[in-house]
Amino acid sequence: MPRVVVHVMPKPEILDPQGKAVAAALPRLGFEGISSVRQGKRFELEVEGEVTDAVLANLREAATTLLSNPVIEDVTALDVEEGQA
Amino acid sequence: MPRVVVHVMPKPEILDPQGKAVAAALPRLGFEGISSVRQGKRFELEVEGEVTDAVLANLREAATTLLSNPVIEDVTALDVEEGQA
Repeated sequence: MPRVVVHVMPKPEILDPQGKAVAAALPRLGFEGISSVRQGKRFELEVEGEVTDAVLANLREAATTLLSNPVIEDVTALDVEEGQA
Repeated sequence: MPRVVVHVMPKPEILDPQGKAVAAALPRLGFEGISSVRQGKRFELEVEGEVTDAVLANLREAATTLLSNPVIEDVTALDVEEGQA
């Protein structure tokens, strides 16, 4: 079954407190050399049938309306991964 | 500046209520043909200097201890993206 992976990240101009917290915690735990961290979301959608251009366009709309908040987040990528079957 | 992207997903045997909620909402909003959804996290880490094998091993440890909860989550991938500079 093919899988579509949707990547959602906070917009660059939006503060990302979770990412900032992680960035602050890293050196405290001994991990140096990271200048900034941003945290986003990742959705794995199992698609029934083939991923045609129409299906992908449909999913892109779902990604921008349901999976992300377009006020503060960008859908940075939609990757299609073919299933193993 | 190179960037390391860490992908974290709930383990397959762990219930994913957020993913289930999304999967239930999709057909209600007119998006059909998705059999299941799982929601994970995505971290973008800006690395100072080069991403050597040692840095990557270090980041992998950070990913499994700080960025994910190893009881319920897997680090599914660590991708290195070279910066534009």
